[in-house]
Amino acid sequence: MSEIQIEHPYLMFLGDARDQLAAKTADGIAYWRRDWCVGQLRLPGCNANIGLPDMSIADAAAQGARTLIIGVANAGGVLTETWTDTIVEALEAGLDVASGLHMRVAEVPVVKETADRLGKNLFDVRHPTQEFATGKGTPRTGKRLLTVGTDCSIGKMYTCLAMEQDMHSRGMKADFRATGQTGIFIAGTGVSVDAVVADFISGSVEWLAPDNDPDHWDLIEGQGSLFHASFAGVTLGLIHGSQPDALVMCHEPTRTNMRGLPESPLPPVDVCIRANVEAAHLTNPDCRMIGVAVNTSALENGDARSYLENLEKKTGLPCVDPVRDGVSRLVDALP
Amino acid sequence: MSEIQIEHPYLMFLGDARDQLAAKTADGIAYWRRDWCVGQLRLPGCNANIGLPDMSIADAAAQGARTLIIGVANAGGVLTETWTDTIVEALEAGLDVASGLHMRVAEVPVVKETADRLGKNLFDVRHPTQEFATGKGTPRTGKRLLTVGTDCSIGKMYTCLAMEQDMHSRGMKADFRATGQTGIFIAGTGVSVDAVVADFISGSVEWLAPDNDPDHWDLIEGQGSLFHASFAGVTLGLIHGSQPDALVMCHEPTRTNMRGLPESPLPPVDVCIRANVEAAHLTNPDCRMIGVAVNTSALENGDARSYLENLEKKTGLPCVDPVRDGVSRLVDALP
Repeated sequence: MSEIQIEHPYLMFLGDARDQLAAKTADGIAYWRRDWCVGQLRLPGCNANIGLPDMSIADAAAQGARTLIIGVANAGGVLTETWTDTIVEALEAGLDVASGLHMRVAEVPVVKETADRLGKNLFDVRHPTQEFATGKGTPRTGKRLLTVGTDCSIGKMYTCLAMEQDMHSRGMKADFRATGQTGIFIAGTGVSVDAVVADFISGSVEWLAPDNDPDHWDLIEGQGSLFHASFAGVTLGLIHGSQPDALVMCHEPTRTNMRGLPESPLPPVDVCIRANVEAAHLTNPDCRMIGVAVNTSALENGDARSYLENLEKKTGLPCVDPVRDGVSRLVDALP
Repeated sequence: MSEIQIEHPYLMFLGDARDQLAAKTADGIAYWRRDWCVGQLRLPGCNANIGLPDMSIADAAAQGARTLIIGVANAGGVLTETWTDTIVEALEAGLDVASGLHMRVAEVPVVKETADRLGKNLFDVRHPTQEFATGKGTPRTGKRLLTVGTDCSIGKMYTCLAMEQDMHSRGMKADFRATGQTGIFIAGTGVSVDAVVADFISGSVEWLAPDNDPDHWDLIEGQGSLFHASFAGVTLGLIHGSQPDALVMCHEPTRTNMRGLPESPLPPVDVCIRANVEAAHLTNPDCRMIGVAVNTSALENGDARSYLENLEKKTGLPCVDPVRDGVSRLVDALP
């Protein structure tokens, strides 16, 4: 079965998104890959705006757009006819279509039929179609960093992308490796690790970050948390498949409970660091934690500073807010 | 989508199994559920024998058989015409068909069409068709034991089933909960945990072992190992979803490397015990390891005795070989 390879430039489809949050995937793509995006396409009633020129499919095609990106949540997970019409129009204008919806666009008969007839690709990035081998744990050449976290949705993708940007600015060889839907649009490829069959979690990551140059870094987007009762299995398979040389812990200091689990508190950062490093040692005995990336957006500047200083003392590691401080201290700390 | 509920009595299909090992699933079923099996059906060239009366489909149907069980590996994972003919004949005689093959029998057009026409069930137990919720980690009533291991294929299912038998003989309430194909045939239901989508590993186990009587034990079949680079994610999700009150560690002292990973040694038993108990504490802070089940079949009797005695001293836990010694000391140790 086929690997994902999404061609840019992108036309960003925002549909009739009821608010900006519904378009957060599109927001992330426009933030990290502004130069891949020719414009945004909004239907009547759309309340989101990702700051790109509004554009018709015909105009986007004329400007070279290769793929319509559906980076928006739709109400009830059902594709309405207005959306289907747009998707078919894009295919007929020569674009591929890539969707992050739970529902597969390839399941809509008119969409599938049009794509097949015109030889265009449909990418349902939440639904891996590729077959993976089981993980082997065999050491690979090149270097790998994995972001891990005290919880889900806590800055793992952002931290990887900020490090990629910083490393490229230094002339270092580095590639962001995407494991979730927004990341896949940003990378143009990747694997939705939480959607692969359980037996192949680590194997899919071994595929995602294969042998490479000795001085090349794969920056692998983490998922979930070893301390999240719903998703820790995904996290552990990701750690083993990554064989990371370096880990970065991501944390949000004001969050009171694990995402989606109101009764579960977050683990202490130091406990979480120890557990992740121990788990990583199975496939890379030299792995170490190189720093902590903290989302301090809920704190005043002074509180953020003192929180980070205290955490540095406690962990002995560089602790930064990637948004306030950048990630150069994390890049400096790479082994 | 539908839950698995396989009706017995079973007719055991051995096909043209080239040797006894190819029929090991059928062997396990006949060992643990002899009274559910009316007979075995062998094609010309079959070199396996699970000790049941040879029987035609017509005779098995006349004796009340409800399901044809395909508990045998076939060459190359392809269904030959002789097998397909037998499956269709069984459906036409009024039997359901349950298969542990990698290839889905429901994918063979004539099989699917016959089952649909006659309203018979096809169970491809390696391929869960049910939809699960994500795990919640919320405490459930009743008690749960999970078998874990230093490696895969090391006695986790056997230990659970032996404990179920021992507990039933004492009049205790206990149910074996199956997480792999052979176990599912033995229980008549269950979930192939390694084949669910990664996000739902712990959720599928929460479904498998729901609220129950306060004095009821679910004996949950473990899979993989926290120290197996291919499958540890499955194991961790299983631990979290089980919320075990008790763990039993399974081990084989002469195995030199992790199954399928020639370069990976087994973890020391005490290290493995500690890691499993720590992982379990996320969803059940009271969980403890109650004993070790050791497969000593490769050792002479005297060596086995001294190995088990030394391991008892080292771990402070009852250490038994379930085959040589039975598992009553493990049942005695339940909290």
